[in-house]
Amino acid sequence: MTELAIIAAISIFTAGLTVSFGAIGPALGEGRTASAAVNAIAQQPDSASTISRTLFVSLAMIESTAIYCFVVAMILIFANPFWNAALELAQATGN
Amino acid sequence: MTELAIIAAISIFTAGLTVSFGAIGPALGEGRTASAAVNAIAQQPDSASTISRTLFVSLAMIESTAIYCFVVAMILIFANPFWNAALELAQATGN
Amino acid sequence: MTELAIIAAISIFTAGLTVSFGAIGPALGEGRTASAAVNAIAQQPDSASTISRTLFVSLAMIESTAIYCFVVAMILIFANPFWNAALELAQATGN
Amino acid sequence: MTELAIIAAISIFTAGLTVSFGAIGPALGEGRTASAAVNAIAQQPDSASTISRTLFVSLAMIESTAIYCFVVAMILIFANPFWNAALELAQATGN
Amino acid sequence: MTELAIIAAISIFTAGLTVSFGAIGPALGEGRTASAAVNAIAQQPDSASTISRTLFVSLAMIESTAIYCFVVAMILIFANPFWNAALELAQATGN
Amino acid sequence: MTELAIIAAISIFTAGLTVSFGAIGPALGEGRTASAAVNAIAQQPDSASTISRTLFVSLAMIESTAIYCFVVAMILIFANPFWNAALELAQATGN
Amino acid sequence: MTELAIIAAISIFTAGLTVSFGAIGPALGEGRTASAAVNAIAQQPDSASTISRTLFVSLAMIESTAIYCFVVAMILIFANPFWNAALELAQATGN
Amino acid sequence: MTELAIIAAISIFTAGLTVSFGAIGPALGEGRTASAAVNAIAQQPDSASTISRTLFVSLAMIESTAIYCFVVAMILIFANPFWNAALELAQATGN
Amino acid sequence: MTELAIIAAISIFTAGLTVSFGAIGPALGEGRTASAAVNAIAQQPDSASTISRTLFVSLAMIESTAIYCFVVAMILIFANPFWNAALELAQATGN
Amino acid sequence: MTELAIIAAISIFTAGLTVSFGAIGPALGEGRTASAAVNAIAQQPDSASTISRTLFVSLAMIESTAIYCFVVAMILIFANPFWNAALELAQATGN
Amino acid sequence: MTELAIIAAISIFTAGLTVSFGAIGPALGEGRTASAAVNAIAQQPDSASTISRTLFVSLAMIESTAIYCFVVAMILIFANPFWNAALELAQATGN
Amino acid sequence: MTELAIIAAISIFTAGLTVSFGAIGPALGEGRTASAAVNAIAQQPDSASTISRTLFVSLAMIESTAIYCFVVAMILIFANPFWNAALELAQATGN
Amino acid sequence: MTELAIIAAISIFTAGLTVSFGAIGPALGEGRTASAAVNAIAQQPDSASTISRTLFVSLAMIESTAIYCFVVAMILIFANPFWNAALELAQATGN
Amino acid sequence: MTELAIIAAISIFTAGLTVSFGAIGPALGEGRTASAAVNAIAQQPDSASTISRTLFVSLAMIESTAIYCFVVAMILIFANPFWNAALELAQATGN
Repeated sequence: MTELAIIAAISIFTAGLTVSFGAIGPALGEGRTASAAVNAIAQQPDSASTISRTLFVSLAMIESTAIYCFVVAMILIFANPFWNAALELAQATGN
Repeated sequence: MTELAIIAAISIFTAGLTVSFGAIGPALGEGRTASAAVNAIAQQPDSASTISRTLFVSLAMIESTAIYCFVVAMILIFANPFWNAALELAQATGN
Repeated sequence: MTELAIIAAISIFTAGLTVSFGAIGPALGEGRTASAAVNAIAQQPDSASTISRTLFVSLAMIESTAIYCFVVAMILIFANPFWNAALELAQATGN
Repeated sequence: MTELAIIAAISIFTAGLTVSFGAIGPALGEGRTASAAVNAIAQQPDSASTISRTLFVSLAMIESTAIYCFVVAMILIFANPFWNAALELAQATGN
Repeated sequence: MTELAIIAAISIFTAGLTVSFGAIGPALGEGRTASAAVNAIAQQPDSASTISRTLFVSLAMIESTAIYCFVVAMILIFANPFWNAALELAQATGN
Repeated sequence: MTELAIIAAISIFTAGLTVSFGAIGPALGEGRTASAAVNAIAQQPDSASTISRTLFVSLAMIESTAIYCFVVAMILIFANPFWNAALELAQATGN
Repeated sequence: MTELAIIAAISIFTAGLTVSFGAIGPALGEGRTASAAVNAIAQQPDSASTISRTLFVSLAMIESTAIYCFVVAMILIFANPFWNAALELAQATGN
Repeated sequence: MTELAIIAAISIFTAGLTVSFGAIGPALGEGRTASAAVNAIAQQPDSASTISRTLFVSLAMIESTAIYCFVVAMILIFANPFWNAALELAQATGN
Repeated sequence: MTELAIIAAISIFTAGLTVSFGAIGPALGEGRTASAAVNAIAQQPDSASTISRTLFVSLAMIESTAIYCFVVAMILIFANPFWNAALELAQATGN
Repeated sequence: MTELAIIAAISIFTAGLTVSFGAIGPALGEGRTASAAVNAIAQQPDSASTISRTLFVSLAMIESTAIYCFVVAMILIFANPFWNAALELAQATGN
Repeated sequence: MTELAIIAAISIFTAGLTVSFGAIGPALGEGRTASAAVNAIAQQPDSASTISRTLFVSLAMIESTAIYCFVVAMILIFANPFWNAALELAQATGN
Repeated sequence: MTELAIIAAISIFTAGLTVSFGAIGPALGEGRTASAAVNAIAQQPDSASTISRTLFVSLAMIESTAIYCFVVAMILIFANPFWNAALELAQATGN
Repeated sequence: MTELAIIAAISIFTAGLTVSFGAIGPALGEGRTASAAVNAIAQQPDSASTISRTLFVSLAMIESTAIYCFVVAMILIFANPFWNAALELAQATGN
Repeated sequence: MTELAIIAAISIFTAGLTVSFGAIGPALGEGRTASAAVNAIAQQPDSASTISRTLFVSLAMIESTAIYCFVVAMILIFANPFWNAALELAQATGN
């Protein structure tokens, strides 16, 4: 059962690492964009709608990199092909 | 019982790591956005409602990356599929 | 008893790590927001109430990431499911 | 089965590492670009369409480096040639 | 007695680490807030009372993250549930 | 089969590392260039075409360093000469 | 006597680490606050007393995090419960 | 075959490391230069040709350091003298 | 005598580490405060005495964190309770 | 053959490390110089020739440090005196 | 003689580490203070004597942290109580 | 032959490390100086000759630290006294 | 002879480390002070003598921390008390 | 011969480390000073001679820390007292 334990341990660790490190960049980038948008609205209240539209499209684009990380973490926890293959092998060999 | 201990230890460590590192980025990003919003209100008090709305949508978006991390940590502690599989295997083999 | 010791050690270490690293981001983010609010009040004393309201909502939001960390640390110390499972197993096997 | 476990573990770890580190740069770069665009619109509302076009082309270009990372991570999880070769070898030798 | 020594050692180390790393963020954040407040008073002496009130609420909020760390460190030194459990087990088994 | 596993593992790890670290520099550099271009268009709308042309040439040049990394990662995964040599040797010696 | 030596060594190391790392944040934060206060006095000599009062309250608050660290270090050196428990156990078992 | 595996592994790892770390500096340097050029054109549209010429010469010079890295990585993968020497020795000694 | 050597070695190392790392923060903080005071005197020569008084109180407060470190280092070298206990134990057991 | 493998491995690793780390400084330095030159031409188009001359001499000087690194890497790969000496010794002793 | 060698080695290493790391903070802090003083004299030549006096007191205060480090290093080299105790023990036991 | 291999390996590694890390500081310092010179010429074209002279003397002085590193690296590769002594010893003892 | 070798090795390594790390802080601090002095002379040529005097006293003070490091390194190489004691012990025991 | 190899290896490594790390600080400090001097000459061409004199004295002072490092590296390579002592001992004992 040692191989299963190794794969489980590395999957758990990687899932947490992926989602936590993957949150640093997008959070900082979104913070920068949002603070710029808020300042821009204060400076030019008439363009608030254009600024908001640009802001939301940009936030969605930046958020996408965080979502890549979340997706990979979810795959590693709930649909890990290596874990499935290792389980099958372990059952096949009675190991 | 060694495999169970390894999986438990790595799950505990990863849960803490995920939620603590996942708090750095969002906290800094939200701090930047909120400080910009506060300055913007001071500069243009008439647009306070538009600024607040933009601020809260942005904070929610940034907070989402912290919530991803919290969700993954909770899954690792309370609904860890690898732990369940290992427990079943340990009971099946009487190991 | 080695497995119990490993789980206890890693829980203690992770609890401390989680709460201490989880304090860095929120403390810096709140410091930034609060310093901006204080400057904003000095600049526009008439908007002090709007600024204070925005400040406290933002501080609460940022503090939430620190509270996630504190909650996870408390769970790891006082309601750790892996520790409980390991204790039961140890009592069951007389190990 | 040890070789299979090593390859599986390193693939899982690398996939998570790739997608999480690969998110830092693009997220920060896109945040910078988007915040500049938002400020530019506030400064020159008449050029909003030109600015938006330039912004989206640039975001796409920066996003491409994140997509390289996502592609490599997906290849490592779902179409890993080393894993396939190792599986075949393991089946061939009955190892 | 080795398990007791491991738990004691990791508790001591974690308590120190928690309180020292947990002091960095709050100290810097409070320094930033206080320096902003002092400047704000110099700029707008008439709002000194509003600024002081906002400052002390913010300092209390930021200090709370340092207090979380101090509480966790004190729990680890004086009310450590893992240490108590290990002591009981050691006495029960005469180990 | 140990040598094959070592080469496979190091190739997988290096491919991920190369493409993820190779994304940091170009993404930041492109973000800087694009944000400067967006500001420049806002400042001088009449030179938008010259600025765009310079921007796209520069982006292509910066992107080239990311492409070097992607190419090396693809070579390591799909056309790795060391892996091929090791496979041949393994088949030749029946090892 | 090995357990005693481990606990003594880790206590010594942690005490030094706690007090030295715990000095970095407060010293920088106090430096920032004090430099702001000195500038504020130069800018607005009439508010010197209000500024001084705010400064000393803030310095005391920031210093508190350094004092937490000093207290923990002193506890670890002169009133370490783990050391006392280990000493008693060592005397009880004649170990 | 162990020596061959060591040399192959270190060559693969070094090739990826070289090209990925070698991309950071040039990408940032080119980003800085290009952003300065774009601003300069916006400031002085009449000198666009002189600025472009200076930009392209500078980009080529900076790119040269990235190309050094790419060349060394390609040599390590496809024309590695140590690998060739080791292969010859391995064939000569039948090792 | 091994335990005595371990405790001596860790005490020596910790004493040096404590006093050297504990010097970084206070030195930088005092440098910042003193440079601000010097500028403030140049800006407002009439307030030199108030500024000097504030400066010296602040320097004393910041210096206190460095003195904590120096005190701990001196205790570890000249009045180390663990070393004394270990010496006594070594003499008692003739070890 | 182990010594030959060690020398080959360390030569390969060092060559890559040298050329990739040696590219960071010069690329950043050249980027800074070139961006300053481009701004200077925009500011003072009449001095473009003097500025260009100064720029190219400076770029050549900075590039020289990158070339030192490239030369050392090439020597380590193609004219390594330690490798030659080791090869001779290996042939002489039939080792 | 192994214990003596360990204590000697750790004393040598710690002495060097203490004095070199202890030089970083004070040197930077003094550089900052001195540069501010030089600027202040250029700005307000009439206050040169007050500025100089404040500068020298501050430099002495900052230098004190470097002197703590130097004193600890000298104690570790020339008046190390642990070394003396170890020497006596070694002579007493003829070890 | 093991000692020879160790000395050769450490010489190769140190030569590369020396020349690559020794290139970072001078390249950045020269880049700063050259960019300042280019700006200075744009600001004061009449002093171009004085500025150029000062620039070249300064560049030479900064370059000297890079040349120290290159010289040490060349000595380590081509005139290494330890390697020569080790070679002589190896030949004398037939080891 | 192993103890002598350990002490020699650690002395050599510490001497180099001390003098190289001890050069970073003073060099940066002196660079900052000198650049400020040069700017101050350009701003206020009439105070050149006062500025020069202040500069040289400050440089001497900052240089003193580098000299501490150099002195410690020289002591470790040429007047190392631990090395002398170890040599005497080695001669006395014929070890 | 192992002791000789250890001392030789550590001397080689330390010499390279000393001279390369010792080049970072002085190069950056000199770059800062020289760039300030160049700007100062552009600002105040009449004081060029005073500025140059101050610059060269400062550069010499900063360079001195790099020369300390170079001297220590040369001593370690060509006049290493530990190496000489070890050589004598090795010849005396025929070891």
